Amino acid sequence: MAGGVGSRFWPVSTPDNPKQFHDMLGTGESLIQQTFNRLSSLIPAEQILIATNQRYKDLVMEHLPEVTENQVLLEPAMRNTAPCILYSALKIADQNSEAVMIVAPSDHYIENEAEFVRNVKSAFDTCQKNDLLMTLGIKPTGPNTGYGYIQFEDDGEEVKKVKNFTEKPDLKTAEKFLAQGDYLWNAGIFIWSVKSILDSFKKSLPEMCALFEAGASYWNSDREAGFISENYPEAENISIDYGIMEKAANVYVMATDFGWNDLGTWGSLYDKLDKDENANAIVNASGYFLDAKNNMISTKGDKKIVVAGINDYIIVETDDTIMIYPKSEEQNIKEVSKVAENRFAKG
Amino acid sequence: MAGGVGSRFWPVSTPDNPKQFHDMLGTGESLIQQTFNRLSSLIPAEQILIATNQRYKDLVMEHLPEVTENQVLLEPAMRNTAPCILYSALKIADQNSEAVMIVAPSDHYIENEAEFVRNVKSAFDTCQKNDLLMTLGIKPTGPNTGYGYIQFEDDGEEVKKVKNFTEKPDLKTAEKFLAQGDYLWNAGIFIWSVKSILDSFKKSLPEMCALFEAGASYWNSDREAGFISENYPEAENISIDYGIMEKAANVYVMATDFGWNDLGTWGSLYDKLDKDENANAIVNASGYFLDAKNNMISTKGDKKIVVAGINDYIIVETDDTIMIYPKSEEQNIKEVSKVAENRFAKG
Repeated sequence: MAGGVGSRFWPVSTPDNPKQFHDMLGTGESLIQQTFNRLSSLIPAEQILIATNQRYKDLVMEHLPEVTENQVLLEPAMRNTAPCILYSALKIADQNSEAVMIVAPSDHYIENEAEFVRNVKSAFDTCQKNDLLMTLGIKPTGPNTGYGYIQFEDDGEEVKKVKNFTEKPDLKTAEKFLAQGDYLWNAGIFIWSVKSILDSFKKSLPEMCALFEAGASYWNSDREAGFISENYPEAENISIDYGIMEKAANVYVMATDFGWNDLGTWGSLYDKLDKDENANAIVNASGYFLDAKNNMISTKGDKKIVVAGINDYIIVETDDTIMIYPKSEEQNIKEVSKVAENRFAKG
Repeated sequence: MAGGVGSRFWPVSTPDNPKQFHDMLGTGESLIQQTFNRLSSLIPAEQILIATNQRYKDLVMEHLPEVTENQVLLEPAMRNTAPCILYSALKIADQNSEAVMIVAPSDHYIENEAEFVRNVKSAFDTCQKNDLLMTLGIKPTGPNTGYGYIQFEDDGEEVKKVKNFTEKPDLKTAEKFLAQGDYLWNAGIFIWSVKSILDSFKKSLPEMCALFEAGASYWNSDREAGFISENYPEAENISIDYGIMEKAANVYVMATDFGWNDLGTWGSLYDKLDKDENANAIVNASGYFLDAKNNMISTKGDKKIVVAGINDYIIVETDDTIMIYPKSEEQNIKEVSKVAENRFAKG
């Protein structure tokens, strides 16, 4: 899934060029390239589908030159995750009705790739043998209020039955969840057989199924794109969590611990990066810091940067914009970026 | 005079491309272009000489495409102001022994150009008729410790005899000077006849005169450059103030008030620029400021800049560098730039 806009990563991430297409970590690879390469060790590259918005087609082809056009699912409109997952499940089932699939966001951080691969292989195995919907749950490292939580029935197994999903909680609730010990973070990574997920769609979202059913003879043909561009916008705008997972009875979670982060904000990126001796994290830049600590620095094209007397700031430079913003207020960046772009447009 | 390095204006001003060749004020003209145009209203453009370091020859020709090579005096080594002024006086005298000349830095700010022109015309007139060395003194607007001071004998005239020169004083001394009322700032702008200044050089710096005397038949010929490049480095490294003005008996100062600033630091540039409603000065950029006041902003190529919670800072971006530095510590920028460049060079 590579259709998000990543608006809290402004000014690097913009609606024209969102964060999955940027080398946010300074590794030399964009997030979508990292994700594609990570999945390639589990799945033949030609079997990886990329679901994205129509406007990002060229960016996907540029970042993943090895994929064919048939691997890129172009959403003509943003309709949240349920329609795009149904679309991809139908397309995969058309190629192999016995397939097991993984759904994963293209813009997350995963520290321990080997552990991730081990978990997913085990989940593939379980889902091949069982009619269930599996989600990867992350062992919480703190009462993060930016993530969704999954409560499970503790039967001592690695794969546990899900009791319920909770959207981003307040701090008090998150602390209670951690104390209780039967909660995991919802990473938005799902594994299931196409058979199981299509069954669930039929039960929980029958209208959406009927809409896509009309395209049954077009999947993986040159008529697929035309059908999608005409019918996809008619699909209900609903998430897979709300539309399927919270309703289905066969939902399980695998407790994992591969160092996951949704890279939702500059602060979450900062948390995952190596730091210098003053706890400054520097991406694509050379820094000289004087009485300046805990800053998140990112520039375009390896700029030299001198910072004096500034602490706990996000300092980001792109081709056309510089932002100097306190980390503690990063939740406002989305809003600030809108006001700023509007002002700058007026000149 | 366009040979300075302007090291406190780093990172815009660098040894490879110092501040006189930059549009520091965001007017569309570099400082040297502004100075050349200002003087062109007093002096035919083909009679303006530009003294600069050899390495800046191409920059001078690029910024002032109307000047001929014979108008550009190339110093093969930095020898302070006395040798370059002697060289130019000899070159002018070779063309017209009755000439009156003005010596002016290429990188200063002058607010009231009409007043400046009026003062210089009056000084030209005085120097044509009298054997004296005239300096323009600026009525102080505060006890600035970054400028030299000139004490005069108060005879009520616009042109006053100079009692003595004082280098940059400490604050207490500067306050005393202002209270006394018989001190002016030394702008480093001089007017005199070539006859008067050459007489003074003969008296005060006879060795330097002898060195250049050997080139007498080469001025304004194709042998001038070769002679200079061989002999100029032998000249004493000494300022016109120390070598001539502090010794001569016929030194006068004209009290002027044309809104002068030596543009020595980012703070002095800030003082002279228009400000937005939060007292931020912005050159070549569009700004959006949230709880951010009194900042000096300059970017390359009209960047958009968002600044939150930062006050009294210098925020400067160039093609390869960003500096975020407190205005109150700007006197350290020269030193910081050296350490920074050294670090960055090591990678």
